[in-house]
Amino acid sequence: MSKYCVGVDFGTLSARALVAEVGTGKEVASADMDYPHGVMDNCLMDGTPLKPDWALQHPGDYIECLGYVVSEALRRARVSPEQVVGMGIDFTSCTLMPVDGQGMPLCMRGEYAQNPHAYVKLWKHHAAQEQANRMNEVAQRRNEAFFPRYGGKISSEWLFPKVWQTLEEAPEIYRAADAFVEAADWVIFRLTGQKTRSECALGYKALYRKGAGFPDSGYFRALDQRLERVVEEKLGGEILPLGAKAGEITPEAARLTGLLPGTAVAVANVDAHVSVPAAGITSPGTLLMIIGTSTCHMALSKKECLVPGICGVVEDGVIPGLMGYEAGQSAVGDQLNWFVKNGVPEAYACQAREEGIGLHELLTRKASRLRPGESGLLALDWWNGNRSVLVDGALSGMILGMTLLTKPEEIYRALIESTAYGSRMIVENFREHGVKVDELVACGGIAQKNPFAMQIYADVLNQPIRVTRSTQSPALGSAMFGAVAAGAKRGGYEDIHQAAREMGGVKEAFYAPNPESAKVHERLYGEYKRLHDYFGRGENPVMKVLRQIRSQAF
Amino acid sequence: MSKYCVGVDFGTLSARALVAEVGTGKEVASADMDYPHGVMDNCLMDGTPLKPDWALQHPGDYIECLGYVVSEALRRARVSPEQVVGMGIDFTSCTLMPVDGQGMPLCMRGEYAQNPHAYVKLWKHHAAQEQANRMNEVAQRRNEAFFPRYGGKISSEWLFPKVWQTLEEAPEIYRAADAFVEAADWVIFRLTGQKTRSECALGYKALYRKGAGFPDSGYFRALDQRLERVVEEKLGGEILPLGAKAGEITPEAARLTGLLPGTAVAVANVDAHVSVPAAGITSPGTLLMIIGTSTCHMALSKKECLVPGICGVVEDGVIPGLMGYEAGQSAVGDQLNWFVKNGVPEAYACQAREEGIGLHELLTRKASRLRPGESGLLALDWWNGNRSVLVDGALSGMILGMTLLTKPEEIYRALIESTAYGSRMIVENFREHGVKVDELVACGGIAQKNPFAMQIYADVLNQPIRVTRSTQSPALGSAMFGAVAAGAKRGGYEDIHQAAREMGGVKEAFYAPNPESAKVHERLYGEYKRLHDYFGRGENPVMKVLRQIRSQAF
Repeated sequence: MSKYCVGVDFGTLSARALVAEVGTGKEVASADMDYPHGVMDNCLMDGTPLKPDWALQHPGDYIECLGYVVSEALRRARVSPEQVVGMGIDFTSCTLMPVDGQGMPLCMRGEYAQNPHAYVKLWKHHAAQEQANRMNEVAQRRNEAFFPRYGGKISSEWLFPKVWQTLEEAPEIYRAADAFVEAADWVIFRLTGQKTRSECALGYKALYRKGAGFPDSGYFRALDQRLERVVEEKLGGEILPLGAKAGEITPEAARLTGLLPGTAVAVANVDAHVSVPAAGITSPGTLLMIIGTSTCHMALSKKECLVPGICGVVEDGVIPGLMGYEAGQSAVGDQLNWFVKNGVPEAYACQAREEGIGLHELLTRKASRLRPGESGLLALDWWNGNRSVLVDGALSGMILGMTLLTKPEEIYRALIESTAYGSRMIVENFREHGVKVDELVACGGIAQKNPFAMQIYADVLNQPIRVTRSTQSPALGSAMFGAVAAGAKRGGYEDIHQAAREMGGVKEAFYAPNPESAKVHERLYGEYKRLHDYFGRGENPVMKVLRQIRSQAF
Repeated sequence: MSKYCVGVDFGTLSARALVAEVGTGKEVASADMDYPHGVMDNCLMDGTPLKPDWALQHPGDYIECLGYVVSEALRRARVSPEQVVGMGIDFTSCTLMPVDGQGMPLCMRGEYAQNPHAYVKLWKHHAAQEQANRMNEVAQRRNEAFFPRYGGKISSEWLFPKVWQTLEEAPEIYRAADAFVEAADWVIFRLTGQKTRSECALGYKALYRKGAGFPDSGYFRALDQRLERVVEEKLGGEILPLGAKAGEITPEAARLTGLLPGTAVAVANVDAHVSVPAAGITSPGTLLMIIGTSTCHMALSKKECLVPGICGVVEDGVIPGLMGYEAGQSAVGDQLNWFVKNGVPEAYACQAREEGIGLHELLTRKASRLRPGESGLLALDWWNGNRSVLVDGALSGMILGMTLLTKPEEIYRALIESTAYGSRMIVENFREHGVKVDELVACGGIAQKNPFAMQIYADVLNQPIRVTRSTQSPALGSAMFGAVAAGAKRGGYEDIHQAAREMGGVKEAFYAPNPESAKVHERLYGEYKRLHDYFGRGENPVMKVLRQIRSQAF
């Protein structure tokens, strides 16, 4: 009888469960569900307003979606729970919440329900930029050893800026919190009853290093006296490496999901990282781009290279035994969605409706008729700040070259191109600092569904791009880790290498660069790079000045 | 029995006639009509495609509209033709066409109907930028005396670049042309049978100077041997000063317009220039902004100041006896219309429809709720190039500061603000070079209809702005010049000063700057200026590079 494993991918807007066959990677069934509260970036459910740059979620959504997607995927797969050897989950990160001693999120306690700081701060919550800035200054001044591993910049998206923002703006929430936990670890707690922490997430988002641990208390004291013992006081729980078993499904979680009590559950993982073995990548030389709402760039290497402007390099952070590198772009699909929602005229909406297609499809068709350079437009892809290589959430979007004849599809194309140029900046930055990138693989919604965008990426990067076989790489990777957590003896795998060989991989067809287009993009990329440095490296800090002026206008 | 005068204003999209009472300036009736062919910037009527930056018109439209608007305005005014002492017209400029020996536009001859160069090149036809660039180089190299009077830059919008483009790209049209004439002068020819040229238009758009004439043949030879005798060969006709009488209505024109044969017709004028006396301005110290599709800035001075980046300074060019200065912005209302047509989502269109208002009105209402600086956006108002103070049609629009939460009304507001910053650049440039600007007066569609935009202008310029009493200043100014052409003895005026005193003027209410807003705009203007210089003065020529790349993509 076939064995199966289950992976659940918690994205920005929805959760998705996948049932995959151990040994073949065959994807038998999946199910997904949108978070009922979505992303709260204007106000809480009760109307409590949020300031600019906030992005919250409700943790109840995770449990509600978890129950539905796992049980529904099992039903669709016609797989009995006995056949499931293990499950794993992955999550956006750092997506962080304060919980009480019983593991109850503070926002779910009536007394704190109106306090925004009691909620989950989503990865793209950028309101802790102030704290990130000060963390950077202090780390630089103290010449902290951890600092270069994170490209010399701590992002406002990470754990400690979010914790510190809570302390400064809502000390009562900080005090009431027994711990600040990644949403991923919290879901594992709800599945297994075990308070574990994923070493992977801590490594990339909480300055943690295998062996060496967190930054020492002197650094935290230098930030804020009250943070001196933040690690001991607020970050409890057992730290487990990738591939480890976090625990087993409890009877309560079994009722929720339809899995059997005792089923192995892997330690939580990060969505981008778990996609690497799903792409069949377990050795250096191949870079994986997960292109969706945002983009993550994952690379592996035997040695530790200090690469400026990346999110981090973590030993065993992606594949045990190798250094795992992460870099990324904060808004890719998000930027296109912003445009479709805010910048496309009614005439286009009518045309799309008449043809029975979506606006993205209509714009793609119109934009695909344009040659590279024909729009005369150039954009900087910073609608949600810049994660790599500038690591600056306070940067913002720019577009230039508009004339009275500029059309929406030209802007749409320029926005796609800008994200491709941003990816090229990251790839070149890796190479310049010693991380080999011989091959490119892509996964994620845009990689799977948007051949137009992918051809632009191949032309801009001037290199073939392969796409993962699975259309749901994170869920597949999580399922693979579930099988690893179960172990070979219980019908799973010895290690992730073996799982990747049998269950991961790429499609045969690939995107080949068009030499003519590549030439034009070479010139446009040169212009992009110059503007990138001008606005991004301090020569003209206008984007930050505008933010300052804006914050004073409220 | 009251005496009246008629003015006809030929704008970018339509013509408008006004019947005004001599002695009071009372506006009795008006009528307007859109040009049937509008602006041809994509293709000719038969589908012949046009390259980027082209903008043509059909001269038949002018006559068709002329007949309708004059006769309809007279009918509505219930004024008999005997009561009309004179008429005047004003036009966009340089709006230029090739005509044959009989004064027939070449595009109206079947053999040339498919040749884009046979049509009227509208003022905003920017495809002669190459020729303008070379004219500038040669003028600089030869240290031409005329050059500093035009701010050290010849615009692609002017006469000679358009003529030279025709010679280079369609020598057969150049050869077939008996003359290149301003549309304004051509309409006067159709009204009076007289081939006259307006000294005002020649002064601002054709490098002509009272007394000294055109640049000498050596300059033209240095440009292109074939241009050596361009003045003698292609610019015939009697040059007449402002306020002069061009001739009298012919019997044929009388049938077209309903005026009496023999009615005095003033020499043609330029739309912006004719608005100055309509605003009651006939002496130095007050700057007039005509804010509409584009914006013109008109100033007067006793002495000739050489101001870089203006369109020109012409003796007697606006008011006889004074130096008349012109500067301008190529796209103001045009830029907002571009946005409304191309960048506003369906949800807004639906809301506007439900409320029974236009999109401009809806956006204005939403934008007026924002405080200065609240959007975090900053734009450069160069959607149609920059006329002053950079005189560079190859520049293009820019906007920065976008986030995933940026809303259409924020962009709309940023676009308005950018045009106000552009106006401030021009005002400061005048002051820095000796032209006094003590008071500001505005007219034009935006000045009359958009108090929201006007308040922003007052805040940005940090100075009160008064608005002309007439809502149709150019047509009123033209009517006034018609009365001057008739002369005092025939019931008109001795000179334009007298006409301005009796018929022109401003409203009592005015826009006062808000000190709080002015402070914020002061900071934003500083940022605007820095980007203006960075992109506009050669430090980063990316906008031109993108144009080059674009031209190679076709």
